Amino acid sequence: MTGPVRIVERLAWRGGRFTPGERAIAEEMAVAFTYNGTSYAVMMASPQDFEDFAVGFTVTEGIVASPDEIESLEVLELDGGIELRMRLADERAEAFAARRRYLAGPTGCGLCGIESLTEALRPLPPLADHVAVAPRDIMRALAALPDLQVINEQTRAVHGAAFYRPADDSLIMREDVGRHNALDKLCGALLRADISRQSGFALVTSRLSIEMIQKAATVGIPILVAVSAPTALAVRAAETAGMTLVAVARSDGFEVFTHPQRIKEERSLHVVAG
Amino acid sequence: MTGPVRIVERLAWRGGRFTPGERAIAEEMAVAFTYNGTSYAVMMASPQDFEDFAVGFTVTEGIVASPDEIESLEVLELDGGIELRMRLADERAEAFAARRRYLAGPTGCGLCGIESLTEALRPLPPLADHVAVAPRDIMRALAALPDLQVINEQTRAVHGAAFYRPADDSLIMREDVGRHNALDKLCGALLRADISRQSGFALVTSRLSIEMIQKAATVGIPILVAVSAPTALAVRAAETAGMTLVAVARSDGFEVFTHPQRIKEERSLHVVAG
Repeated sequence: MTGPVRIVERLAWRGGRFTPGERAIAEEMAVAFTYNGTSYAVMMASPQDFEDFAVGFTVTEGIVASPDEIESLEVLELDGGIELRMRLADERAEAFAARRRYLAGPTGCGLCGIESLTEALRPLPPLADHVAVAPRDIMRALAALPDLQVINEQTRAVHGAAFYRPADDSLIMREDVGRHNALDKLCGALLRADISRQSGFALVTSRLSIEMIQKAATVGIPILVAVSAPTALAVRAAETAGMTLVAVARSDGFEVFTHPQRIKEERSLHVVAG
Repeated sequence: MTGPVRIVERLAWRGGRFTPGERAIAEEMAVAFTYNGTSYAVMMASPQDFEDFAVGFTVTEGIVASPDEIESLEVLELDGGIELRMRLADERAEAFAARRRYLAGPTGCGLCGIESLTEALRPLPPLADHVAVAPRDIMRALAALPDLQVINEQTRAVHGAAFYRPADDSLIMREDVGRHNALDKLCGALLRADISRQSGFALVTSRLSIEMIQKAATVGIPILVAVSAPTALAVRAAETAGMTLVAVARSDGFEVFTHPQRIKEERSLHVVAG
């Protein structure tokens, strides 16, 4: 199977002349999500961590409430890309079919199943309010980030999404050409390994738009840290969802846009054994 | 109507302590595209240049072949966002309805109307092969870019897409929180002003994924320059479409990934009067 990095030939124009040479660039592949024989969406993504992507996307998009409701998952290599073929538990399959019938109705289908302006701004579940991390934890995770950005180190063109747990100083990282995909893959990895989203915080290398807040809140991540800036709509969504939004996180510090009560010197986290 | 930049309050943590203050961030709004009363897609976008966005998206997504086929366009401010309400010419409306019936069929709907892996890799129209620009034109456009990135100057968080014409040294710029949207808005601006896509080249501040190649090729842009890197799939798509792909364009030079014959000291462009 194709890997996430590819070496291509190119002509460099520097110092007034052309020189042939090579560059490592990120691979990108069409990935189709199908449920009980029905195609749902096609995403362009880095060809790796497909199981995490399948589970993460299916939960963050609200197709299932828990990974247990995905009865089977096959990763199939097809001609034009990858199919993530899933079978949902009966109850969920019915809800999914009803949603599809609704979307196929007179008001039409839309982006990724979001058919109306209202549905694009969906309500989010409440987040744990007892969780808190220390500023030093955020600085520690930020400093550890570059070493785990393996694909970005080679290509300088992929996003990263990570989860840091202060208790065991662990950082789980997923990378992708798409920032939503990187977060979906991270969410899938956390769900599959049954890692409590209250045991630390998520950290993304990209900008924060509203979909990133929605995806993180859907899996119960109470603290989200971004290297880049948030959009104004993302800030409003995080405010409403009760999420602590930290952004512009750099080596000299960070900025807290919503619910700063979760950033304090004394941590209070859900510490899991093992 | 809401503007593209918003000032919010946030707490900065720097030098070991929290300080209150403000930051300018990019606004983001749900924008729904509807055709003859049917909703097609909802995109999150910067709230500006809606007419360009409507025309650009409708053409780059292949819903119409030319702006003339959009009979009317209304920009409506609704509760949860903006509706771009369009009426298509009869022939196109029928083709659109047939496509929607197909998409709503047993194989299902998908991302932005792309329902299968095959459709995600759609064939592209041939591009003009007589067009050429000089390396100095690329360097000149690159140098002029930052001054026109008005929203990015304030927020450091939006993408830009521009079109440079060497003949009159003109640069048309559109900005958006989404890189596809910035390119759609630029394409719409070119189409609405009837600017020949063979009179210069397009320049984007973002990475180049396959959708950017598809959108640019659909409106007949033969040369695409990016500040960041392309994905491997974008390179293959540009190779097949006959598009000249320039990337990693910085103050010290640039790299040509496909069809370098269009970059040469002697320009040959379609020069339009006026």
